[in-house]
Amino acid sequence: MLKRYLLAPGPTPVPPEALMAMAMPMIHHRSPDFIPILESAKEGLKWLYQTSNDVIILCSTGTGGMVGSVSNFFSPGEKALVINGGKFGERWTKICNNYGLEVTEIEVPWGYAVKPEQVEEALKGDPDIKGVFIQASETSTGVYHDIEGVAGVVKKYDDTLLIVDAISALVAHDLRTDDWGVDVMIGGSQKGMMLPPGLAFVSVSDKAWARADKATSPKFYFNFKAERDKIQKNQTNFTSPVTLIIGLNEAIKILKEEGLDNTFKRHAKLANATREAVRALGLEMFTKESPSNSVTAIETPKGIDGQEVYKTLRESFGVTAAGGQDQARGKIFRIAHLGYADTFDVITAIAAVEMTLKKLGHDLKFGTGVAVAQELLMEGK
Amino acid sequence: MLKRYLLAPGPTPVPPEALMAMAMPMIHHRSPDFIPILESAKEGLKWLYQTSNDVIILCSTGTGGMVGSVSNFFSPGEKALVINGGKFGERWTKICNNYGLEVTEIEVPWGYAVKPEQVEEALKGDPDIKGVFIQASETSTGVYHDIEGVAGVVKKYDDTLLIVDAISALVAHDLRTDDWGVDVMIGGSQKGMMLPPGLAFVSVSDKAWARADKATSPKFYFNFKAERDKIQKNQTNFTSPVTLIIGLNEAIKILKEEGLDNTFKRHAKLANATREAVRALGLEMFTKESPSNSVTAIETPKGIDGQEVYKTLRESFGVTAAGGQDQARGKIFRIAHLGYADTFDVITAIAAVEMTLKKLGHDLKFGTGVAVAQELLMEGK
Repeated sequence: MLKRYLLAPGPTPVPPEALMAMAMPMIHHRSPDFIPILESAKEGLKWLYQTSNDVIILCSTGTGGMVGSVSNFFSPGEKALVINGGKFGERWTKICNNYGLEVTEIEVPWGYAVKPEQVEEALKGDPDIKGVFIQASETSTGVYHDIEGVAGVVKKYDDTLLIVDAISALVAHDLRTDDWGVDVMIGGSQKGMMLPPGLAFVSVSDKAWARADKATSPKFYFNFKAERDKIQKNQTNFTSPVTLIIGLNEAIKILKEEGLDNTFKRHAKLANATREAVRALGLEMFTKESPSNSVTAIETPKGIDGQEVYKTLRESFGVTAAGGQDQARGKIFRIAHLGYADTFDVITAIAAVEMTLKKLGHDLKFGTGVAVAQELLMEGK
Repeated sequence: MLKRYLLAPGPTPVPPEALMAMAMPMIHHRSPDFIPILESAKEGLKWLYQTSNDVIILCSTGTGGMVGSVSNFFSPGEKALVINGGKFGERWTKICNNYGLEVTEIEVPWGYAVKPEQVEEALKGDPDIKGVFIQASETSTGVYHDIEGVAGVVKKYDDTLLIVDAISALVAHDLRTDDWGVDVMIGGSQKGMMLPPGLAFVSVSDKAWARADKATSPKFYFNFKAERDKIQKNQTNFTSPVTLIIGLNEAIKILKEEGLDNTFKRHAKLANATREAVRALGLEMFTKESPSNSVTAIETPKGIDGQEVYKTLRESFGVTAAGGQDQARGKIFRIAHLGYADTFDVITAIAAVEMTLKKLGHDLKFGTGVAVAQELLMEGK
């Protein structure tokens, strides 16, 4: 028996309350059995998003929410500014290109965060830019981009929307949709929301809705206006993914009990303890600035392959973390502290990293990182 | 306590084996824990589809599979022939229009089936038609269209693809994808597959793949070629809907144990018993020809509103069936016998219909329909 521990940046562990609720017998999505559940989940999402805007629920992965955020608000030929600082930044460019937008990129080296001034400069330089596309937490690099700062810039431009992929940041970071003026913000079920993959969430501002009528791209499946009209009646446009929405309602109940501030503080504390523990082991962060609260990206010591760390964690210790993607492949490994995560998930992660590196021939003293994590996680207990 | 019985044409009841498997702790979609499950589900789908073609798995409702079947094989301006005999036929027209196709419709009155000769005539009349879009089972009318006959016509045309929405027919009808030459066939999880909503399946023939390279519509999320490349490696293009695919694997195990022929016979028997029992009550079928094995559409007796039948079934007897949609609203009610359904689901349905109609003032003798159903369901027991 090799007991399994899931510490990957999505899918993340699902609380038993949600697993059990999702295992209840099927109910019909247009019936009075389901409608109050969808209504409660919808209101919960608005609370979590800190918004009075509509938040629509899609049956898709988070990428579906990204695609819809392009096709519902932009037309072929329009200009987009993409902040590309990792694999998911690249995805914005690919989606925009697929829908015929003209893309300008701010290329941010992997491991670094964009500066709001860079966005300001780009928007000043080209007043035709209709949308700025960015990640909140860039999962491939462990960087959190300064959404508040970027939103402060974009809101000065009446014809420019800010579209934030917050798929891996939601729940882990304090994202103030309305206060900051984020026009479109995308979340997904299998990250901080502690659910299986299969749902995307999208908040839409009035400024964005005003643009939806002019957008000419095809959008039959991801039709946000149709979804908005339905969610106001506590329905979805097509068959609702009933079980996942039941799980969503349970997950939100858990988060409400904790309270938003405490949720953000927990994630910040777990992330900080992970980073400091890893540093105590003499390892370098791959994330050079503005680290995410969702995932920690760590450079492997010289001479050790990052994919070997991933593999050994899994095969020898039962811990599923993540390796590196694309240009970071082989150079890093990543550990999540996201969603249904607490003190001893970090302790497990650090202890497993120590044992894995030792097994791969790296010289270290057991407990060095664990002790630092214990110290930092003990606060307030 | 009012015990609930789900007899709607989707979502349908989920077997406990699948519910329990889906309630297991989360695993990672790119990990060796999950890959053999996806591989097994994939092979199972090919068996169920009676095809050696690729069957891709999408994270969406069935409608997502329909949308992808338009955007992956057709370009704006190309001609499509839509068989429109109900609400889902209409959906084909809407999707094709949304993607800029030029649509000709064969309008089939609700309750009737298209004749293959009508398709032949249309194709002869316009050799530029690139695709024929049809439902196998039209859920809104309870009609099964003759897919074998239509496929026999379409395969004579080298430049024309046959695209079948089999979302509610799969499992309930013997659909011979390869033998008949169906180019693209779409299934969904929440019908005969006995799973929660959230998955679409699409089989694609070589003839259709050859067309995929030329199609210019945007298709980032529903990118069938990318999905094909991934499923050949037992992965999906984006994050896999892990729990639903685990459930899919369980559902297929159950169907394999029954055997395809027995599955089809069971559905035919349940459907026949439902129809004959309802006829014994003096009610008229809304379906005038070629009734589906998935759902039975019944006209309400004069003076009784179909929506009242739906409501009374639910509120007084705990039975969730379906009313009528669009032009059939108020005139009919529908009962499914689809997926995880057997003898006493039909008995429940008929008994509840008798009690509901009596409650609504219709004159009938209790047990009249039930006895006929018992007689027909007893065969082979």
